[in-house]
Amino acid sequence: MPKKKVFELNPNISVDCVVFGFDLEKLNILLIDRGESQFVSNNSLALPGDLIYNNENLHQAAYRVLEELTGLKNIYLEQIGAFGDPNRISKEEDRLWLESIRDNPEARVVTIAYFSLVKMEDYPLKASSFAKKAIWIPVKEIEKLAFDHFEILQAAKIKLKEKIKIHPIGFNLLPEKFTLSQLHKLYESILDKELDKRNFRRKVQKMNLLKRLFEKQEYVPHKPSELYKFNEEKYQELAKNGFNNFGF
Amino acid sequence: MPKKKVFELNPNISVDCVVFGFDLEKLNILLIDRGESQFVSNNSLALPGDLIYNNENLHQAAYRVLEELTGLKNIYLEQIGAFGDPNRISKEEDRLWLESIRDNPEARVVTIAYFSLVKMEDYPLKASSFAKKAIWIPVKEIEKLAFDHFEILQAAKIKLKEKIKIHPIGFNLLPEKFTLSQLHKLYESILDKELDKRNFRRKVQKMNLLKRLFEKQEYVPHKPSELYKFNEEKYQELAKNGFNNFGF
Repeated sequence: MPKKKVFELNPNISVDCVVFGFDLEKLNILLIDRGESQFVSNNSLALPGDLIYNNENLHQAAYRVLEELTGLKNIYLEQIGAFGDPNRISKEEDRLWLESIRDNPEARVVTIAYFSLVKMEDYPLKASSFAKKAIWIPVKEIEKLAFDHFEILQAAKIKLKEKIKIHPIGFNLLPEKFTLSQLHKLYESILDKELDKRNFRRKVQKMNLLKRLFEKQEYVPHKPSELYKFNEEKYQELAKNGFNNFGF
Repeated sequence: MPKKKVFELNPNISVDCVVFGFDLEKLNILLIDRGESQFVSNNSLALPGDLIYNNENLHQAAYRVLEELTGLKNIYLEQIGAFGDPNRISKEEDRLWLESIRDNPEARVVTIAYFSLVKMEDYPLKASSFAKKAIWIPVKEIEKLAFDHFEILQAAKIKLKEKIKIHPIGFNLLPEKFTLSQLHKLYESILDKELDKRNFRRKVQKMNLLKRLFEKQEYVPHKPSELYKFNEEKYQELAKNGFNNFGF
């Protein structure tokens, strides 16, 4: 039996990346626009994703594809899971697009989805390959995506919520010195619900992960707030003993 | 371009199932033995798994394959994730076996793993297809499995631990009326560590999910213990409001 070449794309397996970005106000998602128009078109928005090569593992493929399409690199990607509805790529408009870029557009494709949460300002975007643009769009504005990508986005949102309930994630999304109000906004964005301010502050204090700096904001157009810092040592200590719940 | 037939096996995508079983003493795992020997051989033990058909979704494939190989059906399977190391099926002994059963044994295979936790006595086993036996083996005795199945087992154990920390799972693994000592053993098996008895009982009371029956065990060769029942209504109520932590 002839050996298969190893450096070829696998027609049946792809990866897709859900990268969330926080801009101190709201949760955004990184999408590619595959259309030629100078304006962003809702009909051509998709998660950055593509087929994997036979010689790379799934993680490697996710990093490669993300960088190829959006320029984003050096982020921590975590697997969400596999999505394999036999009809996931069979919408008319998706088929036409696949026919324009794939050697074997009829092949069944199971996709493995990854997610990440980054501080947007740290990551300049640069679209290439079949991505004509790479853009951040507020998660709340997304109503439709290519293939089953809207469904994958929902699964990623759930994962993110679960994660923040167990691990105190998100501190790397804030400036080094931040206010409780900024932290509050971050949690509200991720949990996608309003959180009572007073309750939130009480729970955050109980977490015991913040260092009060006895400094206040400067040059802000409102009454300056107290500044806090994330307590890294405390975090490591908790991490070693297994986190308790950080549910809100 | 000729259309592909849809009712064919996909050479690149498989499913594997990690079914945990509890026997009131310890955690077991359901494995298939692919060997012809009348004795169980450590070298031929594997998770029940096989390639998917192009017309079924991943969940359907997992249910089908599990039933085909072990006779187990009507259980709740949850996805663990995808495993796709390019070398996951390249061990010499695994290759030989694949060559004996697959049309395209050289194909790269990414597997999607599922897990479940069942009360063993409810599920009679019946091996068929390439499974010569279907057997429960104590998780602690497993040191090696085919392909990357040992790694998948470790991932499943982690999932199970995470799950029991957030949801009070496991009550369906006990008899309707159970003792705190039986519940203690269940948690110890799943969390794979000793739990201080007194601490455990205190935390369990705090969970507020048990109904004390004011009955005692009968016909036991030791001092009979108090019997409890799982409080289903309370569970539903907590589930609606989002569970708190059940960490031990």
